[in-house]
Amino acid sequence: MDSRNIRLAVIPGDGIGIEVVTEGLKVLEAVGTKVETTTYDLGAKRYHETGETLPDAVLDELRGYDAILLGAVGDPSVPPGILERDLLLKLRFQLDHYVNLRPVKLFPGVETPLGKARPEDVDMIVVREGTEGPYAGAGGAMRRGTPYEIATQESFNTAYGVERVVRYAFDKALARPRKKLTLVHKTNVLTYAGDLWARTFDRVSLEYPDVQTDYCHVDAASMFFVTQPERFDVIVTDNLFGDILTDIGAAIAGGIGLAASGNVNPDRTAPSMFEPVHGSAPDIAGQGKADPTATILSVAMLLDHLGLAEESARVEQAVADDLVERQTGWTGRTTHEIGDDITARVAG
Amino acid sequence: MDSRNIRLAVIPGDGIGIEVVTEGLKVLEAVGTKVETTTYDLGAKRYHETGETLPDAVLDELRGYDAILLGAVGDPSVPPGILERDLLLKLRFQLDHYVNLRPVKLFPGVETPLGKARPEDVDMIVVREGTEGPYAGAGGAMRRGTPYEIATQESFNTAYGVERVVRYAFDKALARPRKKLTLVHKTNVLTYAGDLWARTFDRVSLEYPDVQTDYCHVDAASMFFVTQPERFDVIVTDNLFGDILTDIGAAIAGGIGLAASGNVNPDRTAPSMFEPVHGSAPDIAGQGKADPTATILSVAMLLDHLGLAEESARVEQAVADDLVERQTGWTGRTTHEIGDDITARVAG
Ligand SMILES: CC(C)[C@H](C(=O)O)[C@@H](O)C(=O)O
Ligand SMILES: CC(C)[C@H](C(=O)O)[C@@H](O)C(=O)O
Repeated sequence: MDSRNIRLAVIPGDGIGIEVVTEGLKVLEAVGTKVETTTYDLGAKRYHETGETLPDAVLDELRGYDAILLGAVGDPSVPPGILERDLLLKLRFQLDHYVNLRPVKLFPGVETPLGKARPEDVDMIVVREGTEGPYAGAGGAMRRGTPYEIATQESFNTAYGVERVVRYAFDKALARPRKKLTLVHKTNVLTYAGDLWARTFDRVSLEYPDVQTDYCHVDAASMFFVTQPERFDVIVTDNLFGDILTDIGAAIAGGIGLAASGNVNPDRTAPSMFEPVHGSAPDIAGQGKADPTATILSVAMLLDHLGLAEESARVEQAVADDLVERQTGWTGRTTHEIGDDITARVAG
Repeated sequence: MDSRNIRLAVIPGDGIGIEVVTEGLKVLEAVGTKVETTTYDLGAKRYHETGETLPDAVLDELRGYDAILLGAVGDPSVPPGILERDLLLKLRFQLDHYVNLRPVKLFPGVETPLGKARPEDVDMIVVREGTEGPYAGAGGAMRRGTPYEIATQESFNTAYGVERVVRYAFDKALARPRKKLTLVHKTNVLTYAGDLWARTFDRVSLEYPDVQTDYCHVDAASMFFVTQPERFDVIVTDNLFGDILTDIGAAIAGGIGLAASGNVNPDRTAPSMFEPVHGSAPDIAGQGKADPTATILSVAMLLDHLGLAEESARVEQAVADDLVERQTGWTGRTTHEIGDDITARVAG
């Protein structure tokens, strides 16, 4: 890949996904890198028109890009689980996005519901496993709809899957000033999976003597996100625990409108995919009310992943500056206006 | 049972469990009800001395009491999972504590990490399922310790188990002024279990036209605990999601030192068990630093469960008054002193 010419697949998806992706692309273009985008109409509309969620031919095509930018998928008109499982999770699984990277960072000037938290208290990265655990889709039901129904849900954890994400997290921790890594699980109850995670974590830690390690049960960690977020630097955790923790993380770092994420394939056997943590928010869709900041920060992660560290930093700085400005009561901007303002800073 | 003569089994357990239970019993006696207590030495010490966690004979004896008061079990000297699984969870499962009742209530005067939350914003009850789900202990591992290891963890959900806890939650919601019940799950990913929970919830809701219902994914609910706790009145949820949510709940309601819980068998086929949400906190054990308030509030729940509503209200009021007093800078009291002060209010 010529990193100066990004071949990008864009999946705007549904609801506000479409609006925020427009702004993300605007910022990306302003960076000065050559970007060639191809848009894919995956999501609720295509599902209703054709019954398709993610056809194999499209999946194969997507493999050819340098990266994917996704807005959000989901609409109340589609039964729950379909677009999630057959589109979003299918992309994550098929493209082997085994690292779901979610920074939890309180930017200066941003209001947090935590009365006393300062930006230096909330600055962590959650490394969420992305391809196994309770997200494997395994399970079943018997005697459905009767008083004797039983429904199971199975979590799959492999040494292969756990070790690679744990290693990634150790590398991430080593590269940060604090060099601290916390494993979050529920080893006292989920004893089989917890045992594999804890043993793997301990074994790999021997190779990283400079990384300070810690363990925290998921219930306690969820509490500490609220009471002592400064405990955490890098966290590595299971797919489901990571899902929950990063939403608490979004809350304490100023809201879901700012939370970025990368579904990363560190081995680069397939393109990584960047998306805001928020959903399609059908209730405010099409009204210009969505905050495109999370998508723009996801674009910064995308640039970093493609080796464009300087460009990435420039986008993040533009967002940081815009967030400071917002403090002064500069509210009421539309999705477009926020996108324009950040674009101007990036270009400027 | 003669509700004026409580036959109580007491399991102080480990660490601060022993200290807080002493205060809980002091308050219970001050209520004026005749209480006959028998103490059981279950916990880390007994495990080390005899290898026993919960012998069948003890379990059988425990069945004969009106209720159980538990402090906390767990010690770093015992491998993780043993006391949890073979003592605490065994009690919950064997005594069919299918409702794990956890109020999340911000008392006036109590400091919360949420800058803007007022007591009226944080006032809910989490009805956590207590006998199945991912806590069933099902799962296994293969090729343990090799690069080819696989570890599974299974969630068991039955129509029987889900319906009874959902019904309990609807009754609870109906009895509260707001009459609102929210189901929390992750139906879009845990599709088999989620489908059973959602269908059961919808079906039972038809019998409760006066209860306003709502659904929330666990990740969003965790976020809303921090950003909009006022959304919630009564919540019904799965065992693991309830574990996580109630720790966030403890955080926003002023900390784990105040969080009470009841492991309730609503059919009264076995005694219910009341315990603080916090653990044994070995780091501060034996120093008189533990806050016995959570245990005292658990005693209030115990009294209520035994039909002593007036006595329960008296204990809760004494705690509420003590909490208001603390605001005025009255800190530094020991475990005993706090217990004494609340006892005096209850007696007085
Ligand atoms: C939409 C849903 C399947 C998804 C998840 O659970 O991973 C979302 O909550 C997220 O965090 O990206
Ligand atoms: C100690 C542990 C097994 C327990 C649980 O997970 O239920 C605790 O966290 C709780 O919430 O009571």
